[in-house]
Amino acid sequence: MTDMPIETDVAIIGAGPAGLFAAFQCAMLRLRCLLIDVLPEVGGQCVALYPEKPIYDIPACPAVEGAQLIANLEKQIEPFAIPRLLKHRIESLTGHRGAFTLGTDKGAQVNSKAVIIAAGAGAFGPNRPPLDGLDAFEGTGAVQYYVRRKADFEGRRIVIAGGGDSALDWALALKDKAEKLYLVHRRDRFRGAPESLRLLDEAVAAGQIEKVVPYQLHALRGQNGVLEAVEVADLDGATRALEADTLLPFFGLATDLGPIARWGVDTVRSTIPVVPSSCETNMPGVFAIGDVATYPGKLKLILQGFSEGAMAAHAIYPIVNPDQALHFEYSTSKGVPAA
Amino acid sequence: MTDMPIETDVAIIGAGPAGLFAAFQCAMLRLRCLLIDVLPEVGGQCVALYPEKPIYDIPACPAVEGAQLIANLEKQIEPFAIPRLLKHRIESLTGHRGAFTLGTDKGAQVNSKAVIIAAGAGAFGPNRPPLDGLDAFEGTGAVQYYVRRKADFEGRRIVIAGGGDSALDWALALKDKAEKLYLVHRRDRFRGAPESLRLLDEAVAAGQIEKVVPYQLHALRGQNGVLEAVEVADLDGATRALEADTLLPFFGLATDLGPIARWGVDTVRSTIPVVPSSCETNMPGVFAIGDVATYPGKLKLILQGFSEGAMAAHAIYPIVNPDQALHFEYSTSKGVPAA
Repeated sequence: MTDMPIETDVAIIGAGPAGLFAAFQCAMLRLRCLLIDVLPEVGGQCVALYPEKPIYDIPACPAVEGAQLIANLEKQIEPFAIPRLLKHRIESLTGHRGAFTLGTDKGAQVNSKAVIIAAGAGAFGPNRPPLDGLDAFEGTGAVQYYVRRKADFEGRRIVIAGGGDSALDWALALKDKAEKLYLVHRRDRFRGAPESLRLLDEAVAAGQIEKVVPYQLHALRGQNGVLEAVEVADLDGATRALEADTLLPFFGLATDLGPIARWGVDTVRSTIPVVPSSCETNMPGVFAIGDVATYPGKLKLILQGFSEGAMAAHAIYPIVNPDQALHFEYSTSKGVPAA
Repeated sequence: MTDMPIETDVAIIGAGPAGLFAAFQCAMLRLRCLLIDVLPEVGGQCVALYPEKPIYDIPACPAVEGAQLIANLEKQIEPFAIPRLLKHRIESLTGHRGAFTLGTDKGAQVNSKAVIIAAGAGAFGPNRPPLDGLDAFEGTGAVQYYVRRKADFEGRRIVIAGGGDSALDWALALKDKAEKLYLVHRRDRFRGAPESLRLLDEAVAAGQIEKVVPYQLHALRGQNGVLEAVEVADLDGATRALEADTLLPFFGLATDLGPIARWGVDTVRSTIPVVPSSCETNMPGVFAIGDVATYPGKLKLILQGFSEGAMAAHAIYPIVNPDQALHFEYSTSKGVPAA
């Protein structure tokens, strides 16, 4: 790395969907910004974890896949040629509102007037089930935690484990590809959009998904990383073998905010409390948006991350332009007289 | 109209972008809803006032035109076949949280458990400049307040009047179509996105737009509704004639919340104050979202209307399902463990 610090108005930590749209909002306000991410490409979890997963609740983008959503957001910021600092992890944040210094794990330095933390769940990795011999099956892809390409699951006999919406939605997304699809959960109740729960009932009634409840994962049968069956146990310990070549456990992500917790930013259970209408944290000039940000009534929606990015950008404008009022209405308030 | 009341969970008043997306959010939560609008089609101002105007700040939809945005939102709710009550204006709202009755100007009655007001600017019409003989020029289309089809302005000599972002953005949108384009404003300062202001400077420097500042509209010259020139006056009353066949005044909308103000919902200058994280008004069970809703730090963005629709739908869920906890994570929090 060069020793020259990078000068910018707004350092955006995290280049997932919330960070990308915050960059757009900053650019529309003619604030210089820098997108920083530890991953080698922008897009965050959308690209790294579920590029082919349809996301249903992006307004005006029905059932857009993660990778496509990111491509759309990239297209939106393309005219602004926003600089990126990828494969860098921010280790340190010092300074104050109007004059921050950020240091990365690769020795780069960024000077900025404001900071937006859009770090999602922070560093993320899957929660792995405690099963003997798991490693060998992970190595061959018999056990996977993410679905990167749905086509890879064509004709497979699949056990999906978990009761959250990842388990539910992947079951729905793969039911037409799989030769056989089991859905294992320790109780007969799933967390998910009511509409998805209805679709699950339909798929179960149609024989496309077999619910195996209340059961938990018990053991893996097979050799040399080739899976033959997944053994499940009910609450009394009685076991049952499900013939399968693939196990997809969806037990959530182990998340880690990492160095952020040491910067002086308040954190509560891996989230950062913010003022709702500005998304400012307890540190003046440092803002948090998207999944990492929390406030009373917060919904963990990509959509809310977008909305929060707009609020943060507007709140940052006077930090960067202390002498200028923002005479600004959006394209979306066309025709409405200024208040 | 039939005398049978329409029964629903959520009456959504206003079928602009915020109302349409709120309907989607309700449907995802399996709340029955009804979209109500006084206009003959859904889409609100996006369709009625600026179907061809590009909107820049919808996340992941770069430069989408109003009509296309609405088409996308319609596609998103299509699977739910949400009923609509169009060309009906809600005149009365009575009852309480869990049991409201709405009456329309055409005598229809709607019974609902909750109400979302997504009325935008309410009834809207343009503010007309006080010029002699204006009517005749309006009748022939020499004076227009909305641009419904950009193609209609090909080769015209156009005066755009106004200093807000409507004037600014239409000047930018029409500069390549017009033979000549004047932009008249009473001072040399425009309200608009900083990026749009930069584009204006570029277009002025390139001779595509002629700024006429500080000037005000003074008189219209022409006969039989055919415009020959627009006379403008500076602050000292000195006049100048701009040869033009078309005048587009953008002086904002005269807005009117109409009967809403009589329902017991608090209003402040044609907006409705709400609790930010739920969008509930002072009347329990009645919510307001989009441009009509206000709270400290509110940005008048379509995006915020979407976000508010999601919050309102979630806040309404327990009203409709008092005995059921909402075990729900969004498709966008996939892989994140439940709190």
